[in-house]
Amino acid sequence: MKVKNNIIVALDLMDIDETLKLCGKIKDKINTVKIGYPLTLAEGIESISTIKENFNFNIICDYKVADIPETNKKICDITYENGADAIICHGFVGPDSVESCLNSSLDYKKELFLLTEMSHPGALKFIQKNADEIAKMGLEMNIKNFVAPSTRLDRLSKIRNIVGTDANIISPGVGTQGGDPKETLKYADSLIIGRSVYNSQNPQKTLDEIIKSII
Amino acid sequence: MKVKNNIIVALDLMDIDETLKLCGKIKDKINTVKIGYPLTLAEGIESISTIKENFNFNIICDYKVADIPETNKKICDITYENGADAIICHGFVGPDSVESCLNSSLDYKKELFLLTEMSHPGALKFIQKNADEIAKMGLEMNIKNFVAPSTRLDRLSKIRNIVGTDANIISPGVGTQGGDPKETLKYADSLIIGRSVYNSQNPQKTLDEIIKSII
Repeated sequence: MKVKNNIIVALDLMDIDETLKLCGKIKDKINTVKIGYPLTLAEGIESISTIKENFNFNIICDYKVADIPETNKKICDITYENGADAIICHGFVGPDSVESCLNSSLDYKKELFLLTEMSHPGALKFIQKNADEIAKMGLEMNIKNFVAPSTRLDRLSKIRNIVGTDANIISPGVGTQGGDPKETLKYADSLIIGRSVYNSQNPQKTLDEIIKSII
Repeated sequence: MKVKNNIIVALDLMDIDETLKLCGKIKDKINTVKIGYPLTLAEGIESISTIKENFNFNIICDYKVADIPETNKKICDITYENGADAIICHGFVGPDSVESCLNSSLDYKKELFLLTEMSHPGALKFIQKNADEIAKMGLEMNIKNFVAPSTRLDRLSKIRNIVGTDANIISPGVGTQGGDPKETLKYADSLIIGRSVYNSQNPQKTLDEIIKSII
């Protein structure tokens, strides 16, 4: 997946018309978006293909898949079938659950991102303590794509060291949550930016400023 | 939530007509069902209200909610709005993420189940090691409903000891995965049964046999 300007916009809205309007405003600046369950639940899984047909973006479904292997397979299969280019899954549910997502991605010739760690305060309690092991598990499973947060650069750097320079790391937490774009890109390949863009009065200008800051 | 015959049927199908047909067959034996993302993704969130309107079952949405607090709130709000009586969330993502689900359940006067541990082999790697702490966190947050697996009775017993006799524990893993119904109910309040029922040639008979075995 080639991410234009190293920026992935998180379309964390719950209305497809509003989402498409935002996509129209930012389509010259970016080519990759991330959507989550809120939009899918509100507007149906067909929202993936609607965005795809209108803008031909790379679409990452951030479903944080975290079920038993059988259910993970069903979730991933139907999501790829509906046009997702990539899915994000949790690692803490264990290797068999992740393998089930990985096999689905290989079946559909799509991509899978393994979430190693999260950017919210509560992630400190359980996830952060296990993040290095989750990243190592992903590496052993030959996973190439990882998600790690920009709000804790020491942690992001550690995850990069574990997964190696060949891996692709995308990083949420830039902007509203406090992560710095340029610093984050020392360790990550792409930034995931949500609220700073979709809450902006002028998303194009906001993206232009971020792009300028990371050149 | 009063669970008839202490049995919750997991409707892990992906076709609403097939699901409704199964519901029709089992409606005299049970009053509580669990659905997951596969059905919701395949048939839309309106599948919750379709099942509700036809059978007036208690519906537990097993979405294993595992995102940041802001996203968890959006997922829970729309799911309760669409008729879910309860939602299952992961504890691994930390207290703020769980609190977000809990607050949504209180806003809608619905229920929340905290998943402490899972029944698949991969759960041994990360989740089981943290399950006691997850259960303790739930207890401190005044959560009343928990999910813990029947495939490891020593673990189920431990979770019961942590959350206390006032808590409501529902337990997957009985049947195909190997858990024993009667033994499980020594520690859990209700059994979650999926494949044994929906893959049965005669779901009524299968349920009758299970009901007979636990009296």
